[in-house]
Amino acid sequence: MIQFRPILLALGLMACLMGVAMLVPMAVDYADSHSSWRTFAVSAMVTLFVGVLMVLFAYDNRPVKTGLREAFLLTTLCWVLVCVFAAIPFAGLGLPIADAFFEAVSALTTTGATVITNLSGQPRGILLWRALLQGIGGLGIIVVAILVLPFLRIGGMQLFQTAGSDRPEKIVPRASQLVAAICGVFVALLLACMIVFMLLGMTPFDAICHALATVSTGGLSTHDQSFGYFKSPALHWAAIFFMICGALPFVLYIRAMRGDTQVLWRDVQVRGFLMLILVASAVMTAWLTIARGVEFSDALHLAAFNVVSVITTTGFTAGDFAAWGPFAVGVFFLLLFIGGCSGSTSGGIKIYRLQVASLLTRSHLQHLISPNRIVPLTYNGRRLPEDVPFSVVAFFAVYMATIGLFTVVLCAMGLDLVTALSGAASAVSNVGPGLGSIIGPSGSYADLPAGAKWVLSGAMLLGRLELFTVLVLFRPEFWRG
Amino acid sequence: MIQFRPILLALGLMACLMGVAMLVPMAVDYADSHSSWRTFAVSAMVTLFVGVLMVLFAYDNRPVKTGLREAFLLTTLCWVLVCVFAAIPFAGLGLPIADAFFEAVSALTTTGATVITNLSGQPRGILLWRALLQGIGGLGIIVVAILVLPFLRIGGMQLFQTAGSDRPEKIVPRASQLVAAICGVFVALLLACMIVFMLLGMTPFDAICHALATVSTGGLSTHDQSFGYFKSPALHWAAIFFMICGALPFVLYIRAMRGDTQVLWRDVQVRGFLMLILVASAVMTAWLTIARGVEFSDALHLAAFNVVSVITTTGFTAGDFAAWGPFAVGVFFLLLFIGGCSGSTSGGIKIYRLQVASLLTRSHLQHLISPNRIVPLTYNGRRLPEDVPFSVVAFFAVYMATIGLFTVVLCAMGLDLVTALSGAASAVSNVGPGLGSIIGPSGSYADLPAGAKWVLSGAMLLGRLELFTVLVLFRPEFWRG
Repeated sequence: MIQFRPILLALGLMACLMGVAMLVPMAVDYADSHSSWRTFAVSAMVTLFVGVLMVLFAYDNRPVKTGLREAFLLTTLCWVLVCVFAAIPFAGLGLPIADAFFEAVSALTTTGATVITNLSGQPRGILLWRALLQGIGGLGIIVVAILVLPFLRIGGMQLFQTAGSDRPEKIVPRASQLVAAICGVFVALLLACMIVFMLLGMTPFDAICHALATVSTGGLSTHDQSFGYFKSPALHWAAIFFMICGALPFVLYIRAMRGDTQVLWRDVQVRGFLMLILVASAVMTAWLTIARGVEFSDALHLAAFNVVSVITTTGFTAGDFAAWGPFAVGVFFLLLFIGGCSGSTSGGIKIYRLQVASLLTRSHLQHLISPNRIVPLTYNGRRLPEDVPFSVVAFFAVYMATIGLFTVVLCAMGLDLVTALSGAASAVSNVGPGLGSIIGPSGSYADLPAGAKWVLSGAMLLGRLELFTVLVLFRPEFWRG
Repeated sequence: MIQFRPILLALGLMACLMGVAMLVPMAVDYADSHSSWRTFAVSAMVTLFVGVLMVLFAYDNRPVKTGLREAFLLTTLCWVLVCVFAAIPFAGLGLPIADAFFEAVSALTTTGATVITNLSGQPRGILLWRALLQGIGGLGIIVVAILVLPFLRIGGMQLFQTAGSDRPEKIVPRASQLVAAICGVFVALLLACMIVFMLLGMTPFDAICHALATVSTGGLSTHDQSFGYFKSPALHWAAIFFMICGALPFVLYIRAMRGDTQVLWRDVQVRGFLMLILVASAVMTAWLTIARGVEFSDALHLAAFNVVSVITTTGFTAGDFAAWGPFAVGVFFLLLFIGGCSGSTSGGIKIYRLQVASLLTRSHLQHLISPNRIVPLTYNGRRLPEDVPFSVVAFFAVYMATIGLFTVVLCAMGLDLVTALSGAASAVSNVGPGLGSIIGPSGSYADLPAGAKWVLSGAMLLGRLELFTVLVLFRPEFWRG
């Protein structure tokens, strides 16, 4: 039997947290004497009320035995519920329900697609709320990716089990320590990013919002031109640096802080990630200078910014890379699938899965040539656990199939193939912008039909929870004893 | 050490066969008093000369021990060499080299993409040559798929090992028997198809050419409007029937002939294949009648024809399905990847791989829910051999990655995303038409840049040989002792 009480308790606590978080934009709008503070106040009251009710109803002193099923259910329900509460202020400020939910999901999953236009004309509260949601979502996904997914054995994440060999009574204290350390690193990165942005000329408010959007690899800006609003190359380089920071494995920061300072440079995933960024940026720079006649210094920072923004699944844009010609479109289409490192705020297939998949393909080809030779598989200096190969390759296959199915559903709603396909890929990978004239870097999701917004919201959540976390809930065995 | 002599001998014999085959279109053009008979005569002489030279050079009475490597190398070299010889008449008749090779590869891989326009104005010899190449390629791939690929353990084809448990001295006689039986079934289907087409109103020449293109699931027509040239619904239904026949597992025909008449209806792959065709045709018919206002009887045969044509990877078109609105485009885009059954003339991922992959995904989700429960996997009533799950899923992943990489390369040559992506998918799946205005159902590959034609030729060959057969040749271990 699945234990619903502890799940409800945890959900209630999350709701209370969200209610408290709404007080921040409320305060800002109140200080600005903007009437929208009332919307936030009402939203906070509703959310807190529901949250407290849930906690009171579910609170129980008796210990219960929880396990895998509860973890699966809690993870999915938690994200859905938080998205629902987060959407309340958007709806209260006049967005249609589909738009409000889309915006909340996009922010919390750190996707960064937006349906709100004329951003500079919006009250600061709403802009801050979007930024805060990205921060909450970014921190949330790191915790899920480091503590929950390895335990659930999703898509080869068992590679990164941190508490595997410990005795059970040690797991909870170690987990709380780990969460505290993750929060510490996240806040430190946020502060550093904000200060650098301010030093390079952003207003304090823009710096806070963009720091939250950058470190969480979210990508929601406070300006309609996204990061292209800021013309300073130095700001672009700073954003590139912090987007990369957000897409690195947070566990490594913690290990580095605990003394193993070389760990980041030794890690195979980090090296592959940086190498990929270097190669893709160089190719795109060469293309911009040679084929499109852009001056080298501009080409370099524009190429690096947009490549990093898409690979890290941030989704800021600076200039319309969809207008850089068919080759650039092809490259950015491929980059939509890749993603950053495991245990970070970025989405996508992720570097370690691509590395493990390429390792497996090589070894499979060897096996075809010499069927009797057995070569042990190692990744990052460790033997691959037995069930990782299949987990990783199955993730890849299900990822592609999911995007294919979402594409057809979006096509059925009248979207053209490029919009549907790039929209599906961008949503499942939590990138943000798609390709084509509607949802491309210079477009907006505002004009899509409401149905497509619901579908894309689902795709973002599914991608954020690495597909299998949600898909298990659709198996009848999950609900049977 | 790889034994090159027997490979050269086999290649020489194949070249001689091709040379002899060229005498057929030569005879037709001679009878038509069309000067192009000389081109075929010269091509045949060159091909026979090279072939005989190769045989003489390689002939050797001493037995040699050949194995896996020779089988890999021979399979790939054979297809490339046959394509090169097949291209000679096209080049002789004035096509640029890239076009001639593309047309030969497209016909032999039974893809059915063409760069030749104004087909009705061409001499009959060249039309017959294209048709013959599809027949040769279709028969060739069935033999490879039934005899060679299971032995090479490509992409889970070990599921269909026919000579697995026999003693080695029995393999060669059984293989020759099998090849004879395959040829018998193929020729019987061809004759039946041709007679039906003639009875329903095709000229004998059109009937021969279209029977070759239909049973081989090739799809090269003798008319620019492809099968849409024939307005008779009865002809469409006949073509639907024979395209399906060409995409069924040929081993089952042989078993049915040997007395097990129920085998076709019992087979899980065949059932899944027919079910998929029914569902996709029904959905498309509903879409055409309800959303596009087409009359039901027209909608039914147009939908069924185009769905079957794409799923079986034939690539005939009747009407421009790309003009049926975004939903149809989305569905046909997905259908580009699917393909028919194993051991048939069709390409694509193939039904059994999709069925095994979905079985594995279900079992993986079960495993995530109850990690300690072990459920044996069965497919088509038999336990899945141990190395099949990974083979199948890896095939799927490499398939997608290959199409992704070809897409970027084609984009780099200036093709737009829809053309590049659908062209890559269509080529790797050996379908034929792509999507978009250039290579869509009403377009042609003629206008693509020469580089793109070479790239697509490579994609067609790679797809036809199920990727791994070719990819192993790029591993250094293949060439080392």
